[in-house]
Amino acid sequence: MAKDKKKNSRPRAETPRGFRDYFGAEVTERAAMLSAITEVYHRYGFDALETSAVETLDALGKHLPDVDRPESGVFAWDGREFEDREGDLHPRDALALRYDLTAPLARVYAEHNLALPTPYRRYAVGPVWRNEKPGPGRYRQFYQCDADTVGSASPAADAEICAMLADALEAAGIARGDYVIRINNRKVLNGVMEVVGLLDPKNPEAGEEARGTVLRAIDKLDRLGPDGVRALLGEGRKDESGDFTKGAGLGAPEADIVMSFVEAERSDGAATCARLREVVAGSEAGLTGVTELETIAALLEAQGYGDRAKIDPSIVRGLGYYTGAVYEAELTFEITDEKGQKRQFGSVAGGGRYDDLVMRFTGQRVPGTGVSIGVDRLLAALRERRGATEAAYGEGPVLVTVMDKDRLSDYQTMVAELRNAGLRAEMFLGGGNMAKQLKYADKRTCPVAIIEGGNEREAGIVQLKDLALGARLAAEIETNEEWKAQPAQIEVPRANLVGEVKAMLTRGRA
Amino acid sequence: MAKDKKKNSRPRAETPRGFRDYFGAEVTERAAMLSAITEVYHRYGFDALETSAVETLDALGKHLPDVDRPESGVFAWDGREFEDREGDLHPRDALALRYDLTAPLARVYAEHNLALPTPYRRYAVGPVWRNEKPGPGRYRQFYQCDADTVGSASPAADAEICAMLADALEAAGIARGDYVIRINNRKVLNGVMEVVGLLDPKNPEAGEEARGTVLRAIDKLDRLGPDGVRALLGEGRKDESGDFTKGAGLGAPEADIVMSFVEAERSDGAATCARLREVVAGSEAGLTGVTELETIAALLEAQGYGDRAKIDPSIVRGLGYYTGAVYEAELTFEITDEKGQKRQFGSVAGGGRYDDLVMRFTGQRVPGTGVSIGVDRLLAALRERRGATEAAYGEGPVLVTVMDKDRLSDYQTMVAELRNAGLRAEMFLGGGNMAKQLKYADKRTCPVAIIEGGNEREAGIVQLKDLALGARLAAEIETNEEWKAQPAQIEVPRANLVGEVKAMLTRGRA
Repeated sequence: MAKDKKKNSRPRAETPRGFRDYFGAEVTERAAMLSAITEVYHRYGFDALETSAVETLDALGKHLPDVDRPESGVFAWDGREFEDREGDLHPRDALALRYDLTAPLARVYAEHNLALPTPYRRYAVGPVWRNEKPGPGRYRQFYQCDADTVGSASPAADAEICAMLADALEAAGIARGDYVIRINNRKVLNGVMEVVGLLDPKNPEAGEEARGTVLRAIDKLDRLGPDGVRALLGEGRKDESGDFTKGAGLGAPEADIVMSFVEAERSDGAATCARLREVVAGSEAGLTGVTELETIAALLEAQGYGDRAKIDPSIVRGLGYYTGAVYEAELTFEITDEKGQKRQFGSVAGGGRYDDLVMRFTGQRVPGTGVSIGVDRLLAALRERRGATEAAYGEGPVLVTVMDKDRLSDYQTMVAELRNAGLRAEMFLGGGNMAKQLKYADKRTCPVAIIEGGNEREAGIVQLKDLALGARLAAEIETNEEWKAQPAQIEVPRANLVGEVKAMLTRGRA
Repeated sequence: MAKDKKKNSRPRAETPRGFRDYFGAEVTERAAMLSAITEVYHRYGFDALETSAVETLDALGKHLPDVDRPESGVFAWDGREFEDREGDLHPRDALALRYDLTAPLARVYAEHNLALPTPYRRYAVGPVWRNEKPGPGRYRQFYQCDADTVGSASPAADAEICAMLADALEAAGIARGDYVIRINNRKVLNGVMEVVGLLDPKNPEAGEEARGTVLRAIDKLDRLGPDGVRALLGEGRKDESGDFTKGAGLGAPEADIVMSFVEAERSDGAATCARLREVVAGSEAGLTGVTELETIAALLEAQGYGDRAKIDPSIVRGLGYYTGAVYEAELTFEITDEKGQKRQFGSVAGGGRYDDLVMRFTGQRVPGTGVSIGVDRLLAALRERRGATEAAYGEGPVLVTVMDKDRLSDYQTMVAELRNAGLRAEMFLGGGNMAKQLKYADKRTCPVAIIEGGNEREAGIVQLKDLALGARLAAEIETNEEWKAQPAQIEVPRANLVGEVKAMLTRGRA
């Protein structure tokens, strides 16, 4: 019992469930990608904003605490000083970790709008937290990277974000031709709903359920094809297993109108908009939406983005949430998924126009439009594109091994010479013989190890071990004998250390 | 009453107490500084590590929950799923925000040590959270920037961190000559304590209180001078107000020994170490410490850091916490403080050697040494050095104003040309006349505004308004008449737009 207690009293060295650590290149590759993206945002005139991870639950909104379940979706806790903890907790006193970067933007804009310029254009990068069940590849802390223009109703603001998103993807390393920005407009969708009788502008609440069914049907176009969608717009659809999904109950003429909306894409933005104008002819809101899309298409065309930013009425994701333009960036190259199936990589960013950002705080409608990049997905795409080749060796530092413990200064001087030449280098600081030191070099994926014992010292030379070559050979060579015969180690004059190491590093990359 | 309720139902747009937002240059200057520092760390062979903000309270340790006061110093909460919330909360189930970057490092090393190389060299940058009373300039979320070598007992690891710290400060923008790295060793201090009878190696717990008094006395050298410290080592000291501070009660010979330790600094590291060797002659631990300092001094000397990394026995800060070498970086230039007094800027980084990092988790002693840079203090120092001059204008984008709403494409094309030339630029996306647009430009600190109305369009020209010059003139000119006479606005051919804007920006910086 006492033993048990002792054992249990040691803390477990574990992250909480759903959290993880990021090591080495996982950190630096993400940082490099985000730095390339935010440089584009900056050039577009957006300003950085960094809010704290912690907000009042009240300011975060959306997720409000109740007695039975103090948090749902957010990490929240009682933020009062201990001595003040009496009586009921007001949401104003509860603290919570932000679940996205938009809610803090709303708080900042409501708090500082007199000091901020209008429009306020900001970008933000950082982790957000979700108190949700974690799953494979789904963590409770992850990065978001957002850019928003708050206080502008102009479609030019939407067009600009689409152009900026294209430039940001290219700056991150996605080649032109490997992505497309698809643009749609909620108002056009509303126009379609109006024309088919599912939306009454005078009573916009009614018919919400049926509209939701239509939206979900359209979203299945990729999977079910036009016939499947059409069935779901009407009575419903029986799938291969025999299960029946109830449809939206539209008559044939109405279902035709919805389908003509979904299939309205033409050869360019102007032609697509002309077709949409026909589809929503009966709806004022719909025509406003088409006019906005026309402006966006014309601006993107004039700036040379016409080939990669397209009006696409089949995009419905987010249409339920946004109030005007909706856009998303899709990567078009193929990958092989977990099941061995080839498919397009898919969406890596999305956004749109909203007009009630600060409503909760001030009661005023302030128009805004913005985009959020899925940082982990884009990073995965870049790794997919670059391939897993290389990268294994060469990430680690050049290692100066320690043969003689009394000569640390000499070894450290070599390291200083290498560092001053801009190379990543270190002296082995652990204990142990050469075998142990080379094992360390292996774990660090060091490209080169430098060895200088007494004999080398007297002869004015050093040994350079090409560990990158060694690793490649080891993968190819069958027997130990062959291995030993390979010239992965050379002697060079001590005076030429830096030049020879550089040459070996270059050889490794050739 | 009903009205009151309605009013109260709106959330307040406020950060929680002790948290703040960072805008624009506050974010980008910090990011640039941290990027320069971590590049040095990387070149030294350190690998990035990013742990999540959230740890189990158990893994964080030090701050353990108790029934009355679930958190002290940390932000902590019940991390169990709602349905599991019965019975007592185990610290393993409580979640908390990390309060530094060292506790997560300990958890990572204990969790992954088989997969990690030994020594494990890592750097980490990120926010940490403290649940403490906030004060002026003291926030509950702030950045830390750490580098540690775990698993090496070699003084070469300490020397390397000192050299790296010097390089990092220079990379961040602190000039050589404006800083000094001061190094001391806990073992030497222990040796002094042993010699004066305040520490028995066989019973190291005894005398802790008296040793604390000695440590605090030494730490007051700057403020009280040698006589004041000597008084506090003996019976005690009466200050100007008449208040008496009880001393450590050392006899005169013992106090002399402590003073000779504090004042042991000589012209170079070797001479200082020789003097320290005399002072702690009777103590084995003390002599070990001196030998370590000698190795550190010799390594730094050999690598060319002898002029800026000094052995300084008067440094006691952190001596109570660390187990071997202790180092700190001090900025030596003068600033004028809040009270109008000139003083040295002071410490911006500190660290040292510890040997019980993972003890709590594994029961094993693992030696480590590392440094933490005070990000906000270093940033303040860089701003102090650079001066508040400049910076005001030029941070914002070049603004293309909108005279004619039907010609957004033309304006946006100008913007695209400027951006493609690498300039920061945007078209005005808000509503309003020219006065409102220029007011926006002012708030954004735009350096240049571009104006093209119908007349300009026909003539093939654009107007460039030099807002940076305008701002400077406005500060100097008394009357409105003079103001209007200044040539802060010029006409240039539309075809030369990019070149002329670049020229204006350069003129502004000359």
